[in-house]
Parts: sequence; structure tokens; C-alpha cells
Amino acid sequence: MPDTGVDTTAPVTADGPPPEGLIEAFWRYEQALMADDVPVLDALFADGPATLRGDAGGLLVGHDAIAAFRRGRGGAPKRRIAGVHIRVLDHDTAAVVAVLAPGTGGRGQQTQVWRRSAAGWQVLVAHVANPAPAVDPRIWREVGTPLMTGATSGPLLGRRVAVKDLFAIAGHRIGAGVPAVLEDAPLETVTARAVQVLLDAGASVQGIARTDELAYSIAGANPHYGTPPNARVPGALPGGSSNGPASAIALGQADIGLATDTGGSIRVPASYQGLWGLRTTHGRVPRDGLLPLAPRFDTVGWLTRDRALLAVVSRVSAIGAPAAAAPERFAVAPGLLAALTAPVRDAFTTWTRDLEVDETDLGDVAAAQEAFRVVQAAEAWQVNGPWLTAHPDAVSGAVAARFRAAAALTTDEVARAAESLETHRERLERALADAILLLPSAASIAPQTTADAAAVDAVRTQTLRLTCIAGILGAPALSAPLIEIEGAPLGVCLVGPRNSDDALIHRAASLT
Amino acid sequence: MPDTGVDTTAPVTADGPPPEGLIEAFWRYEQALMADDVPVLDALFADGPATLRGDAGGLLVGHDAIAAFRRGRGGAPKRRIAGVHIRVLDHDTAAVVAVLAPGTGGRGQQTQVWRRSAAGWQVLVAHVANPAPAVDPRIWREVGTPLMTGATSGPLLGRRVAVKDLFAIAGHRIGAGVPAVLEDAPLETVTARAVQVLLDAGASVQGIARTDELAYSIAGANPHYGTPPNARVPGALPGGSSNGPASAIALGQADIGLATDTGGSIRVPASYQGLWGLRTTHGRVPRDGLLPLAPRFDTVGWLTRDRALLAVVSRVSAIGAPAAAAPERFAVAPGLLAALTAPVRDAFTTWTRDLEVDETDLGDVAAAQEAFRVVQAAEAWQVNGPWLTAHPDAVSGAVAARFRAAAALTTDEVARAAESLETHRERLERALADAILLLPSAASIAPQTTADAAAVDAVRTQTLRLTCIAGILGAPALSAPLIEIEGAPLGVCLVGPRNSDDALIHRAASLT
Repeated sequence: MPDTGVDTTAPVTADGPPPEGLIEAFWRYEQALMADDVPVLDALFADGPATLRGDAGGLLVGHDAIAAFRRGRGGAPKRRIAGVHIRVLDHDTAAVVAVLAPGTGGRGQQTQVWRRSAAGWQVLVAHVANPAPAVDPRIWREVGTPLMTGATSGPLLGRRVAVKDLFAIAGHRIGAGVPAVLEDAPLETVTARAVQVLLDAGASVQGIARTDELAYSIAGANPHYGTPPNARVPGALPGGSSNGPASAIALGQADIGLATDTGGSIRVPASYQGLWGLRTTHGRVPRDGLLPLAPRFDTVGWLTRDRALLAVVSRVSAIGAPAAAAPERFAVAPGLLAALTAPVRDAFTTWTRDLEVDETDLGDVAAAQEAFRVVQAAEAWQVNGPWLTAHPDAVSGAVAARFRAAAALTTDEVARAAESLETHRERLERALADAILLLPSAASIAPQTTADAAAVDAVRTQTLRLTCIAGILGAPALSAPLIEIEGAPLGVCLVGPRNSDDALIHRAASLT
Repeated sequence: MPDTGVDTTAPVTADGPPPEGLIEAFWRYEQALMADDVPVLDALFADGPATLRGDAGGLLVGHDAIAAFRRGRGGAPKRRIAGVHIRVLDHDTAAVVAVLAPGTGGRGQQTQVWRRSAAGWQVLVAHVANPAPAVDPRIWREVGTPLMTGATSGPLLGRRVAVKDLFAIAGHRIGAGVPAVLEDAPLETVTARAVQVLLDAGASVQGIARTDELAYSIAGANPHYGTPPNARVPGALPGGSSNGPASAIALGQADIGLATDTGGSIRVPASYQGLWGLRTTHGRVPRDGLLPLAPRFDTVGWLTRDRALLAVVSRVSAIGAPAAAAPERFAVAPGLLAALTAPVRDAFTTWTRDLEVDETDLGDVAAAQEAFRVVQAAEAWQVNGPWLTAHPDAVSGAVAARFRAAAALTTDEVARAAESLETHRERLERALADAILLLPSAASIAPQTTADAAAVDAVRTQTLRLTCIAGILGAPALSAPLIEIEGAPLGVCLVGPRNSDDALIHRAASLT
């Protein structure tokens, strides 16, 4: 057995003689954990679908899910066992509670139910709790109690806002998910209008939350600060680019995620984490003090855990904007659904079964998506190109690749895409004149963070086909957490006419 | 049964037919929890010393400790059960894992081992994990990732500092544990020297941590922001006034607590939470940018989890200050120990048994303590009186009472105390000329937060008798976590000559 520095001298108490071999099995497990000896760990957990392991990342059900988690995590944090309490249940069964002393300080607890079978002593149930950090740096950049206090009265009194790191807050910087941006950023002197209206309504700013690099992604990963956890699906991507606000809201660390949606950046994390999310009508909520990505499509919006709060936030944030009604009827687009994978298409179709819905033909959405992609890329490069040229290593991976592709676009390509986009917009507008379009908010449930890049990219392309429709129309799009696929959430998206934002939220009440 | 709003429709899975009555007992427990029906909860946990219940606050061992916790907490946070998994262990035993959906968002987990006996179904082991908040407002006022970056190299590279909310940090305010102070506070323009030296040595500022009101207490409670948790003793006071930094370090949320000690404000929380803590020689570490309490006694110091780090911090923070040697010999003061309660006296005496120690007579320390109290109070009122007079309701409870007593002191009383203090100082200096004084850092282990005020005050007076000695001498005092009383830490304090700070830390290595 390798020397893993495991100290087996922790005090052990028991309410009877510990069954033979149990304590040895406990320490064998601990040594394997510290050595990240995955085969030994797998063998010390009971086979089958009933074995359970939970931690702050969620509850894993079944040996397979637990083994996959172990393979993906790259080892457990180093720790010492400060004490062991054994409750003997019978000759072959015991609960073992260990007080954990992580190398980084604090105390945690591990509760295990062990049973002896022909396979020897194995864990049936495990629950691990490590001490919480001061702040989760994957989710937040700065947090206060609060960071900024709002008005002493108003409809949002007591509500805490997680502000995506693209909005100006006086006295703070904008970091945009990129360390080099943060380094260059000045202290803001004026708070963004979209933040200020929430403060004026009584909300407070809890903190500044993460974003995918320059908001140019819908995955929710960030190589600099870590990928925020998906609060609903253990080990899954949180969705982006509003990844910090989404995880903060889903985890209960704030109530309102103030975010942006250019190509799906609110709707996708809402869908992946079971939240309500609204992409507002283009131009409806002021963008002063917002770092742009692609102004032709950039919108302000929010993520919440409940519909009623989203309704209030939407109402107070669009002062002076017109209120349009939403059509009475709902429509689905069979051509769009046909391209989805069977589980998502089936779950969505099952969900619409009890609704009265029209069918509509949106034409060649793939072509519309391509025009959207080119125009968005051209704008993103126009906005960020000069800075990225001066900071060639500032962004990474898929985001860097997208910017490279954007830089390579010719003026002619962009002009043709813009023209094509206008044609698509007119056609989509006609197709949706009389109905609220219903579609899945994303083409899949949240992929696992360990999924291979090609699979994530394929899902991304499929999802953008769904999300680009509201982008092209400049229309409001509400993601409602109404579907579950094997316990993982999937949003239903409602797309309505421009300025029907509040009406959409109202209409969604009838769908829950 | 009262209507507690408990929804018993959560999905339940089991690896076999659940034993009769188990699910009903589970829901009965849940309803009692939501109704804070303590007798029912107590009855549903198995009697005896082997029953276990743990959460982020620590592991409680035995039915009595669990029942005391329930009586004191005023109910559990509201939650919904999102799912239940049952592992049947035998006809009378099962593990029940519940996914918790707190009303404030996020997901938690509760793992219970149930057993049926003549008393019916009861819990033998329970482990509850609620989702972590964005930041614990009892410990922190502001947190960043980091809040302030230090030098890119140096002996403290990678170390995170929790700064007590009395030190200036450019761009931030000083709150001093009192909301009205924070409200009136300007943005600081210059960072305190004691902070800057740590940044220059490569450390970063993790955040601004809490203090007792105006640092005028050693309990660690704060009525405005809540009492930080004691990371080592479930339900106990954290010790103060450096309560935020101490809990942050003990919980692993930072590595270095930058704090102050006027009458024990570093040594007491170090003792209560098993940390290393140094009160430095008076004047050794610059106090520029520090909000004073009583300048005659105020010192800068630190809390850490390990001795070696404290040594580095002390070394880099006292640039230019002289280094005095520490005496070879150790001394104890039997007269001082005689006044302690038996458990503390016995534990300390047992600990010194293997050491070669002299005995020394410190004379009438009670009289010295009284002179210290009066001079400190007079200074505290001189510093804070004008502001407190203008803000009569700003501080509360015992702190307000101390300030009222301070305001009532006559010039004559203060002059006599100052004169007496000088006499005591000279006598103590002679008594400690040739030895390092060893004494308990506090007169007790950490009292429970539910302990009655008179008991806490009695312990406070006893503790201040111990801590005032270094204060009167202006001498360094190191609290080392070397004793445990039934699992609760108690510090051993080393008091040495002025400027023997580093030597004391070095000498303590031989005691561990």
C-alpha cells in the first residue's frame, strides 16, 4: 500500500465492539481516497443502483454515477481524520461518522453506512460535507453584506441581486470573465441603469457574479475562475454566459440574477438549472453601463427562482417602455422540433400534449441561424477586436476560436449575412404574428462537464438554432422551468411580440 | 397534528419494501421540525450518548447535546423535501437520504439512520447539510477573490488575509462592528500599514471580517450581524473582539487573521477556537490606519492555524523593530491559577507537569486588573465618547454598559488608576524578569452562546485577570493551542519581555 500520509491514530469511539474488519476497511478507503486510487474506491462502494453518495454538489444515485464522478474529479481535497464515531447496527452493518480536518482548515463531516457481504465491507450510503469557502470564486468575484444597499422601501425590498460582471457598479471594476480585462479596467464612477432601477426598487446588490469569457459562450465554463456548479444536476455545466448569476440564484445565494442575453446567455442557464429567465425585448431595458458583446442583439434580462419575482423585476426595470399584449394562442414549430434528439423532442411533445397549440412553419431556421452567427461575430469583433489584438492570449479555447473566426470574416460576407438576416426576420415575424411560440429553451439538458468538446459543440449548435429566433426578432423570450428529463430540468421557452415581456410572464402562470 | 405545510408527496425510492411505519416516522419528524416541536423531535432521536447529529456547525454527540441544541436554536430553516431515498438495512433498520429544498433556494441533503425499538422508529445518526450562503455575514462584511491583490512574490505568496473591520483598506470603509459607524464612514484612501506589509510580502486580502462592537468585548457576539460560529465547539461563542478573523481562520476561509488585541481580543478567540494568536509588543507593529479603542493598550496581531505561518507574518510585519531574546526559563503563577475553576486549573497543571517551570508571585493581580479596566475605559471613552454621545443607540448590551460606566469615571478615579497601574507594571516586570510566564489564555473553554449573561460575565472577569498582565506590561503574548478539555480547545499563553515576539513563537515549538 502506498504511503499516503493517512494518520490512522484518530480517536475512535463506538457503542459496542466494532465488527471485525470494519475499521480496517474504513482506513483502506481513506488511504485510497488520499491516493486517488479509483479502482479501490469503486470496489469499496457497493455495486448497483441503490448506492448513494452526496456532497454539496448534489446526490449521486447508483454505483455507476458515483464511479463516473470519481473518474472525473481528479482526486479529493487532502484531509486528516480528526475523529471517528461508529454506531454498530448489527454484526455486518454499521454507520461510521468521521470528523474531517481538511488541509485548508475548518472541519467537515463524512457519514457512511457500511455493510459486509461476500464482497467484504462496502459503503452503501455516503454523505460528505466539507467546510464552505469564504466565497465560491467560480460563482462570484466580489460579495458584500450587501455590496450596495438599495432604497429603504419598494417592491424589491430584501431581495439580493447577483450582478453579472458586465455591468458598471460605482467604485468597482468590470471584469467580463477575463483576468486581463479586469486588470485593465478602471473603477466605474456611475452605476449601470439596469442595476440602479433594482436598487431604487429596494433590492440590494449581493455581489458581482461571473460570466463566460466576454460573454461569448453558452456553456458556462470559465478556464480562469473555474466552472460554476450546476445546482440541479451534479457534475453538469451550469449554462452560460450568465453562469455566475444562474448558479448563485439556483443555489440560493441571491434572489435576482441581473444578466444579459445575446444568443441565449440567460435562457440556456435558466434551462440547465431549472430557473425562470427572461431575455427582454431588444432595447427595452437601458444598456448604459453595460459592456457590449454584439449590440445588435445584446439585451438585459434576469434569472429568478420564481415567476412572481421575475414579474416584479421586469415591471420595475422597464420604466416608460410600452406594454404589448401577448397573442391568445400558442404555436409550436414541428420543423424545429424534428431536428432535436429524441429525449428532448419527446419530453417537449409530451409536455405540449395537454395544451391547445397551433403549428407554424418557421422556414429555414438553419440559414437564419448562420446569418445570425455571422452578424453577431462581426459585431463581437468590432467591439472586442482592438483589445483582443493587443491581448492575444487573454481568452482561450472555444471563445478564442470564435473570435478568430470573427476576425476572418470579410466585409462582403457580413453584408450578405445582414441582408439575409433581414429576410429571415420578416419571415419569422409573419409566422409568429398571431401566436406565442413555444419551444425548448435548449436542445438538451445540461451536459456533464466531462463531456467531450465535440459533443458539447454539437449541442451548442442545436441550442443556438432554438435561441437565435428571439435574437433575430429582437423579441422577448421567457424560459420557464416546466420540464424534467430524468430529474434534470429543461426550460420551456415562450417567444412573444416585441414589448410583450410582462404579458409573457403573466401567460406562463397558466402553464405551471 | 398541526398543519405545518409539509408536502408529503416527494418522490420516494427504496431498494426494497420500506419497513412498516418508517415513512410515517420520517414525515412525522419533518412536520415536527417545521413546527419546531422540540418534544416530538427529542422523542424521535434515540436516547443515550451514542446518538449523533452533525451539520456545518459541528458534530453533536449524545441525545443530551442534541436536545440542548434544539432548545437553543429557535427552529430550523423552512424547507421542502424534494426527494427521499431509502436503503433498507433490515426489518428494523434503514438509512433515509432526503434531498432538501430550502425556501431560500438551493439543495441540501439530510442523511439519517433509523432503527425501530420498543420506543418505535428513532434516528440513531443524522447528518444535515444545507446550501452555503454567498458569504457568511456573521464572519464577513465584504469578500473578494481576492478583495486586494498583493505582490507577485514574497514569503506570504498565496496566503489569504481576513482583515478585522478596524483597519483602513483603500477604497473601502471601516465599520467597526457597528452599522451606524459604517454608515458615517468615509471611503479610506490609504491602506493601513499593517495590511500593506502583508500585501508586500505576497499575501492577498480575502475580505473584511467582523469585530465585536467597537472591539470593546471579548465574547465574540454581535447583535447587528450575528455571532460568528465557533469552528471547534458546536454552539459556543467564538471569542472576541476579533471574532470574524478568528472564525474565518478556524473555518479555513482565510489563512491569516489580521486583528487587534487591547484586553485579550486575539488571545481569547485563539483559545476558544484552537488557533495560534499573537498579541504583539505594544508599539511594535505600526497602527497607522487602525481605528483605536484604547491607544495605551491597543496592539496589532494575528491569528493563524499554524505556528510556522505566524512566525513569518510576525517577522515581515515588524520591519525595523528590535528583536529581544526570550528568557530560557518558564514560570507559572500559582496565585493566578488558584482563582481558576477546577477543570481549567487541572488541565493547565497537568499540561505543565512535564515542563521544568519556576513559580512566581505576581502579587495582587485583581487590583492590577481593576486599574487596567479603569484606564482602558477612560481611553475608550476619550476615543469614542463624542461619537457615542451623538449616536446614543449605536451600541448595545454589555458594550453599551461598559461605555456608560466609562463615561461616569471621574478625572480623579482615572488619575489614581493610572498611578496604580504604573506600580503594578513595575512589580510585574520584576516578577517576570527572568522567565517566560505560562498561563491559560482564557479562564474557560468557550461558553455556549445560550449560557446566561451572568455566567458569561463571570468568566469574562476571570479571563481579563489573565489577559491584563501582557496589556499592563506592553509585552508580547502568544496563545498556543496546546490543551483540550473534553474536545474543546484551551490556549496556553506565553508572555515574554517586550520585543521578544519572534523568540516566543520560536520557543513555543518546543512545547507542541
